[in-house]
Amino acid sequence: MCRWVGYLGGAIRPEELLYETEHSLIHQSQASEFYENGINGDGLGLGWYGTREKPGIYRSASPAWGDRNLRELCAQIESPLFLAHIRATTGTPVQQTNCHPFRYGRWLFAHNGYIAEFERVHRELLVAVAPKLFGNIDGSTDSEVMFHLALTFGLEEEPLPALERMAGFVEEVGARHGIEHPLQMTLGLSDGERLYAVRYASGPIVNTLFVSESIDAVRELYPERERLHHLSGNARAIVSEPLVKLHGAWREIPPGTALIVHQHKTEMRPFRPRARA
Amino acid sequence: MCRWVGYLGGAIRPEELLYETEHSLIHQSQASEFYENGINGDGLGLGWYGTREKPGIYRSASPAWGDRNLRELCAQIESPLFLAHIRATTGTPVQQTNCHPFRYGRWLFAHNGYIAEFERVHRELLVAVAPKLFGNIDGSTDSEVMFHLALTFGLEEEPLPALERMAGFVEEVGARHGIEHPLQMTLGLSDGERLYAVRYASGPIVNTLFVSESIDAVRELYPERERLHHLSGNARAIVSEPLVKLHGAWREIPPGTALIVHQHKTEMRPFRPRARA
Amino acid sequence: MCRWVGYLGGAIRPEELLYETEHSLIHQSQASEFYENGINGDGLGLGWYGTREKPGIYRSASPAWGDRNLRELCAQIESPLFLAHIRATTGTPVQQTNCHPFRYGRWLFAHNGYIAEFERVHRELLVAVAPKLFGNIDGSTDSEVMFHLALTFGLEEEPLPALERMAGFVEEVGARHGIEHPLQMTLGLSDGERLYAVRYASGPIVNTLFVSESIDAVRELYPERERLHHLSGNARAIVSEPLVKLHGAWREIPPGTALIVHQHKTEMRPFRPRARA
Amino acid sequence: MCRWVGYLGGAIRPEELLYETEHSLIHQSQASEFYENGINGDGLGLGWYGTREKPGIYRSASPAWGDRNLRELCAQIESPLFLAHIRATTGTPVQQTNCHPFRYGRWLFAHNGYIAEFERVHRELLVAVAPKLFGNIDGSTDSEVMFHLALTFGLEEEPLPALERMAGFVEEVGARHGIEHPLQMTLGLSDGERLYAVRYASGPIVNTLFVSESIDAVRELYPERERLHHLSGNARAIVSEPLVKLHGAWREIPPGTALIVHQHKTEMRPFRPRARA
Repeated sequence: MCRWVGYLGGAIRPEELLYETEHSLIHQSQASEFYENGINGDGLGLGWYGTREKPGIYRSASPAWGDRNLRELCAQIESPLFLAHIRATTGTPVQQTNCHPFRYGRWLFAHNGYIAEFERVHRELLVAVAPKLFGNIDGSTDSEVMFHLALTFGLEEEPLPALERMAGFVEEVGARHGIEHPLQMTLGLSDGERLYAVRYASGPIVNTLFVSESIDAVRELYPERERLHHLSGNARAIVSEPLVKLHGAWREIPPGTALIVHQHKTEMRPFRPRARA
Repeated sequence: MCRWVGYLGGAIRPEELLYETEHSLIHQSQASEFYENGINGDGLGLGWYGTREKPGIYRSASPAWGDRNLRELCAQIESPLFLAHIRATTGTPVQQTNCHPFRYGRWLFAHNGYIAEFERVHRELLVAVAPKLFGNIDGSTDSEVMFHLALTFGLEEEPLPALERMAGFVEEVGARHGIEHPLQMTLGLSDGERLYAVRYASGPIVNTLFVSESIDAVRELYPERERLHHLSGNARAIVSEPLVKLHGAWREIPPGTALIVHQHKTEMRPFRPRARA
Repeated sequence: MCRWVGYLGGAIRPEELLYETEHSLIHQSQASEFYENGINGDGLGLGWYGTREKPGIYRSASPAWGDRNLRELCAQIESPLFLAHIRATTGTPVQQTNCHPFRYGRWLFAHNGYIAEFERVHRELLVAVAPKLFGNIDGSTDSEVMFHLALTFGLEEEPLPALERMAGFVEEVGARHGIEHPLQMTLGLSDGERLYAVRYASGPIVNTLFVSESIDAVRELYPERERLHHLSGNARAIVSEPLVKLHGAWREIPPGTALIVHQHKTEMRPFRPRARA
Repeated sequence: MCRWVGYLGGAIRPEELLYETEHSLIHQSQASEFYENGINGDGLGLGWYGTREKPGIYRSASPAWGDRNLRELCAQIESPLFLAHIRATTGTPVQQTNCHPFRYGRWLFAHNGYIAEFERVHRELLVAVAPKLFGNIDGSTDSEVMFHLALTFGLEEEPLPALERMAGFVEEVGARHGIEHPLQMTLGLSDGERLYAVRYASGPIVNTLFVSESIDAVRELYPERERLHHLSGNARAIVSEPLVKLHGAWREIPPGTALIVHQHKTEMRPFRPRARA
């Protein structure tokens, strides 16, 4: 599996969420909870929106806990919108091109989960990617294929329906191969304006996903927490695991749900795999 | 481009050909001749046949000149049959899974050259790989696709015709896309018994390839060369560039030619791309 | 901390101890026991004696569990004497030159533990290394300094007394800096003939170390275990943690003890830090 | 040797100097001029001053030409003051901790050149580093020792005299060991306010160093060059090799000279090694 964090709000340094909380993303790289051996040591990535049209990406195949460049970068840059990911491979090679987030134009995409028995369906899924998008696939993960299927099915025009078509297609192909529960995923995406998240699995076990409550509400609960004071009122974080154990600060996103975080509001919608148009 | 060395003969340490000659493969990593900037610094690989059924592979994305593990390995192991390769990428990522040689069962495969405008034909070529072989593709190079196309077209049963079908197919797809000279290649392959080599290009410029003359003949020419004394009589090296400048020691393999090095003889045959059966 | 394995006996492939047992060294890289978070993901190394005077070394800063080259190497080579190590840094950089085993001439050296508050005593310890040995130090770990102190104090002539002088010196310097328990260590060393091990700590907590019982005895206990059949009668493994849970197969080495494994006998001796001659 | 670039002026993206000129630093990594084989492929580094007290550092042991993270970073950040370096090792290991620039507090330090026969004088030079600075040395290069000697001799208080003492000390130790020309260096340093550069060698051959002429003057010469239009009037670049061949745009810094680039003026001073106070 993997762990990831998405943030949208006033510009902050990524180190605040990646290093400086009790159970930060980097802490999760050695000690994930809800998790078999708790290790996410197969690479990392940070994608952030800055002053350019295209977001920047830093990716490395090293374990996140020892990556000095990530530490530096997270201390220097400031961003109102970023996605960070730590990887635990489900079989594909540990290499930079397999690290999340993946990028297409202004879009970033991160994933925690897997396509079941990917080696059996890889070819069929890959062939369904639009030929003009094929050249943007640099690595060999199921995640990157999922991203490019969603792009093929219209992600840029209507993000959530396209993700639902992607999920529907993965399940359809899986079913044809007799795979019981083809898909397990939490997704984090952004187009540079909004932060999207999805929690879904074909079977009854669904990877965890949480969104932070409104900063005002959390500040009221924990007036003594200094970190909360300088966060903007509209700041939201979406996380595989809470970055800090504060009762009332995190809301679990229900299975089969999509989330759209705008600058000033957050929507929740059901997420239901669907057939391609 | 790239540079490679293949060896078949009495067991030797790979360091003899990779490090200890005047223009060894490692020397070529910084100073190739017949070559634009002379650098092959985008990774390396060594595949060798030892005491097991399957050959061993060591691959690294580091420049060969500074790779300490390669230096160690080449000093410790002894092998009667090996292929070594140093890479200069033509665009695909610098990563371990893109380093040569590639392996399938007992087969090893190394390549110098390119498929022209690979990004335009990649998908079509990949789709032509037999589905049961698809999962053996780990990287993203044109070379690895060429290997799996040849496997698809019967490499294990009849190596040279399968390679000719691969070349024919690449040229056919290239022609359909209006690409003038689709293929540039020297190939080194082995099944653990024989060493195969091919020199071919669609156009008039063909990457260089040489085979060493018989050791007996070279020894007669250079009786003072100590290194030659302990080489077995049947030893043959195939190289992108001569490892040492000894007049009479190397024979250029003509363009459009395949070579089969057996334990005790070497055959040369014309290499002509052909349509798939 | 770290984990390591030493082997002396009939030649075997290292994969037998590094990959193929229930709690192999590679398994320990993700799930060490007796251990805080159980992760040893900061690099690995294998040093082995082959057919050359000098042993070979393979070292990599990647986590051991995903290192493909280590997997290949351990399947191909055969050795009657080797040391393998997986690293969990206590603060010094994750890089190849900090991976164990370290080498000097025919000697290999691996360490699990630490010099307490190394940053405070590093300079003083380093200065005590014989100037002619100084250039052999490539990395920045406490372990490599310990090795070179032992060499300075006569490791090549009388191994155990030299190690005791090293330990005594580290404790003397630590005491001068007011450090309560300066030294924590299990050591694995070899000169290519014998395998040495030491278990010692300045304080009451001492890292674990085990030696395998005689193969004959273990075979009698577990006649159904196939792996035991082809091991030579004199084979011995020394390990940070048992590689397999077999009652009666492993003997804990007591704290304050050194072990010398010869081809046909194993000696245990008290290990007592001493002043330099 | 190595190649480096220092910049001070209005904030720009480092990609302008590292990627977008005809003979950019990245171009120099494969094709340096004034240079034996023209390759600087043993790692890279970028140190930049941003919105924090401490400058940021990105360093990687990969060849600069293929480093995707460097490409990304240079496109995203903007900085009024940075130092970038590409490495060609003179013998010490290729690893991140040996990449320039090195950092101490707010200082950055980059070097091109060598201490002659470093392995013979390494220990003596290292021992002369102030004990309180010793722990800031992470790698094993001559360059990092030079930096810490300069710090020991007062770099933070009076930069140029401290560098002169460092050079004097290196020459004194070298002379004592009978080394003819102990020092070869161009240096780039910054305290976050000024950019310092030094060109010096003990012998007659001195590595090259150039400073850009005033932007106004260059603009007058080349009114059609668009890149020049948006550069601030006070912008200065110091480079091992001109980034672009424009007659009148670069001034060679004479051997035995130091340069201090302030926000609005540039001073040149003689650089003369001196004895320690």
